[in-house]
Amino acid sequence: MKEKFMHLALEQANKAFELGEVPIGAVVIRNNEVISLGFNMRETLKDPTAHAELIAIKRAAQKLQGWRLIDCEIYVNVEPCAMCCEAIIQSRMKKLIFGLREPKTGAVYSQLELPKIRNAKLEIEEGILEEESKRLLQKFFNKIRNK
Amino acid sequence: MKEKFMHLALEQANKAFELGEVPIGAVVIRNNEVISLGFNMRETLKDPTAHAELIAIKRAAQKLQGWRLIDCEIYVNVEPCAMCCEAIIQSRMKKLIFGLREPKTGAVYSQLELPKIRNAKLEIEEGILEEESKRLLQKFFNKIRNK
Repeated sequence: MKEKFMHLALEQANKAFELGEVPIGAVVIRNNEVISLGFNMRETLKDPTAHAELIAIKRAAQKLQGWRLIDCEIYVNVEPCAMCCEAIIQSRMKKLIFGLREPKTGAVYSQLELPKIRNAKLEIEEGILEEESKRLLQKFFNKIRNK
Repeated sequence: MKEKFMHLALEQANKAFELGEVPIGAVVIRNNEVISLGFNMRETLKDPTAHAELIAIKRAAQKLQGWRLIDCEIYVNVEPCAMCCEAIIQSRMKKLIFGLREPKTGAVYSQLELPKIRNAKLEIEEGILEEESKRLLQKFFNKIRNK
């Protein structure tokens, strides 16, 4: 089940890749049902806040008609930054599942441990389809380098 | 000049207050010119990401047609949370000016020092119209309590 939902997040990440965006995708799930999807569109929308997670969170809140995303889980292929991690905490999500760690901006474990600092009641699981996410990001950075 | 721009942020915060929202307002300035305004609309928009700063940042990026808000300054009446603080850092703003510290979620100095952790090239100034902001927040919490 976890792999299935992370595959959905990777499909979203692929959409970002096709637009020339850093390939990050997110999916919000509640009771094994897909609530919302999102992918990084920072360049396309010219919006510094248009990360996959923020887009998926906004859409989930619209769909569920409230900003509290209790009982929801978010799947992201890459470790969230502090902006997205705090949005996940503030939206009262139950669980964050991510694939690959992000050494430069990752705010769950890598650059800082925001959920710990914030004393957040957020379950966290990492490493789901990590290799697939790594390959996609390498493909992206190779493309950038060859440009 | 700083007081004038913080007054604008407080005017925005008052609009949030009128809607029953936590009274926080933000203004983005470049070369002493107002680029964008925003106020907290989390309840109204049912959106956990609809903080004053994020709204003002999105609008500034739309207006300037790019996600890099170089040479921009953001005025907020209250210390930003980690979501907004990271958005300010990632949008490459030059300076953050805020009024009142926020002991529970403030991510500039209070709960964590995100700009320091992130090694961000962001100038920071605090305390501008701090008392005005304190009074507005106290008015808000008194109203909530009497409900």
